[in-house]
Amino acid sequence: MGNPAHVPAARDMWRAALKESLTEDFEEAGCRYGPSRGSHALVEAVTDYFHRTYGWQLGPENVAVGPGSQMVCFAAAALFAGPGMHGDRRVVLPIVPDYTGYQGLCLHDDGIAGVAPLIRREEGHRFRYDLDVEALRRRTDIGMMLVSSPGDPTGRALTRADLDALRALAAEREVPLFVDHAYGAPFPRIAEVHAEPVLDDSVVNCFSASKAGLPGERIGFAIGHPNYIGPLAAFMSNSVLHAPQLAQHAMARVISDGRLDDTTRDAITPYYREKKRFVVQLLSELMPADVDWRMHSGDCGMFCWIWVDHHPWFDDTTLYTRLKKGHVFVVPGRHFFVEPTHAPGLAEHATRCFRLSLSADEKVITEGVHRLAEVLAEMRDEASRPVL
Amino acid sequence: MGNPAHVPAARDMWRAALKESLTEDFEEAGCRYGPSRGSHALVEAVTDYFHRTYGWQLGPENVAVGPGSQMVCFAAAALFAGPGMHGDRRVVLPIVPDYTGYQGLCLHDDGIAGVAPLIRREEGHRFRYDLDVEALRRRTDIGMMLVSSPGDPTGRALTRADLDALRALAAEREVPLFVDHAYGAPFPRIAEVHAEPVLDDSVVNCFSASKAGLPGERIGFAIGHPNYIGPLAAFMSNSVLHAPQLAQHAMARVISDGRLDDTTRDAITPYYREKKRFVVQLLSELMPADVDWRMHSGDCGMFCWIWVDHHPWFDDTTLYTRLKKGHVFVVPGRHFFVEPTHAPGLAEHATRCFRLSLSADEKVITEGVHRLAEVLAEMRDEASRPVL
Repeated sequence: MGNPAHVPAARDMWRAALKESLTEDFEEAGCRYGPSRGSHALVEAVTDYFHRTYGWQLGPENVAVGPGSQMVCFAAAALFAGPGMHGDRRVVLPIVPDYTGYQGLCLHDDGIAGVAPLIRREEGHRFRYDLDVEALRRRTDIGMMLVSSPGDPTGRALTRADLDALRALAAEREVPLFVDHAYGAPFPRIAEVHAEPVLDDSVVNCFSASKAGLPGERIGFAIGHPNYIGPLAAFMSNSVLHAPQLAQHAMARVISDGRLDDTTRDAITPYYREKKRFVVQLLSELMPADVDWRMHSGDCGMFCWIWVDHHPWFDDTTLYTRLKKGHVFVVPGRHFFVEPTHAPGLAEHATRCFRLSLSADEKVITEGVHRLAEVLAEMRDEASRPVL
Repeated sequence: MGNPAHVPAARDMWRAALKESLTEDFEEAGCRYGPSRGSHALVEAVTDYFHRTYGWQLGPENVAVGPGSQMVCFAAAALFAGPGMHGDRRVVLPIVPDYTGYQGLCLHDDGIAGVAPLIRREEGHRFRYDLDVEALRRRTDIGMMLVSSPGDPTGRALTRADLDALRALAAEREVPLFVDHAYGAPFPRIAEVHAEPVLDDSVVNCFSASKAGLPGERIGFAIGHPNYIGPLAAFMSNSVLHAPQLAQHAMARVISDGRLDDTTRDAITPYYREKKRFVVQLLSELMPADVDWRMHSGDCGMFCWIWVDHHPWFDDTTLYTRLKKGHVFVVPGRHFFVEPTHAPGLAEHATRCFRLSLSADEKVITEGVHRLAEVLAEMRDEASRPVL
């Protein structure tokens, strides 16, 4: 998570759509309870839009709207994982690091597990994680799989091969694969996408309005097979009743009339592409030349995910604490791994990473990267000083 | 549940407040994530308002906002009930019938239990349920208690003596007593209130914007001791992140500037008082004179709860089915009891009750009561006809 950047065109689009809904839909929407699956307007807008965009044949039974896609994932974790007659079934993240919020989805201790990635160094201060399919296949406790693509914090998107491997495993184990497209396709395309979403009996695709500029109003939805979607809609009925109606109607409007696609293409994607380019340039200019720092590959994105491979002087929480004193904030890498301390090799990597957000304005980011470079140089110098 | 009636002044108040929020708060509210406890604006409005109204000394640590008070109760059920080391702890409804939605709060089978009421016949087609405190005290499985007051479907409000008995038991067992004021004080006062809410270490008071006219936007909040409120706010953070922001800001506005109190006093309460008076009059004129029908006592309210004590010819589902043919809808009584079939004596009563909603306009209600009276007469006549 992390607030999306201030993109004026996105803000204006949502404000206009909410105003229209308030004028035209309020009596039927805000003043009445709505269907737990989602308002008719939004469900119809979604089925039409995905048919138009990807050719998917969907009915209302394929769609469940929730107050944010996190709530959809929370419901899924309660429904498809947990203790059972055949032993514990976990929410398995096929590749960590991934969104920290996933770690709070389970009501039971030890309900989430993450599979360590393969780490591939690339040229020019870059690196990339690869999915370790064999390690994932060794797990016998999968209740559901959950992956953000493109992912928070890395911006890594599943490749077609990744997606095929995960789909095959989901089908084989008869468990759902939840793919969280909050940063991806078809909107808001904040980070680069390698494989468009696929319709598959084993895949539940989750979409969100948050990174498209409306985080505060909590609208997300899932598309998938009725065997998975039906229980999700029922769960909404028992818990939140339904997602807020005005925002659902506003989203139906911008999906249907093309405003969301236009704003994605003309404002949101270009904004993050430029922002990432700007920060990459800054980092290459300012980071200490003799420090082995690497950024996860990929264009656009809301974050830079940086790995500083210097043992013992670099540590994510030390960096965090020192930057915080100057009011510069990064998120320590370890938080994006599920209990990294349980996997010693992984802990070594996890604690040498951190996440840098690109949401602030360029002035703030410039100051932040300057300070980051200074603190890294200080940490390196202090380590090389002889202990008296 | 059931949609609130169309009260134009309430609709206009919410629409105006939402419009103000959209104009003035949107950039800071809708376009950003908010605090999981609730937006600062709403939490502050709530603490001020309850200090002004009841003299309560509250800080933010006493308040948790959720997307509807049902979600607050759902979170509570997950936190305070369920299987545990010391056996199963249940959500216990101290008096049934109560809101049907409570029965879906638990993720585990058999997680909810209801205590049968004492039934007291009163004069003039009236009756009343009393809390069976002794029966409640015999339960050893209480994880939390939950009661709507005034209640759906009966409109029954806890008396001061009821509340004192429940508070004492909650304190003794060290469990929270959740009191759901969705129909009550200090707003929307849709049904009569016998005891204003109390601040007590064992009581979590839940309030909702829904029956005050904003069901579609899902705003509710809980006030209580931080020991109970803290986990509720954390649960929101893990599931929905937070309640929708614009509606929170709109609610903060109408709570702070007195509009909600004014609209409650001048429009909402009078509307339901008049509606109830109208329906009571209709029933007394139209119901078959020789049928022993009784309505639960109480002024105002969104419903009439009616008991037709005629064995064997009256049955709630038979009535439901026959009325449905003429597009008249009532809710069979059995749904408001937790597994009434497990308590034979109670089942006999539960299946002879039904709920009549007062939300429709007077013309629709008049037709509905006419049809109800006809169907009751038909059922009675058919039963007295000899079987050939």
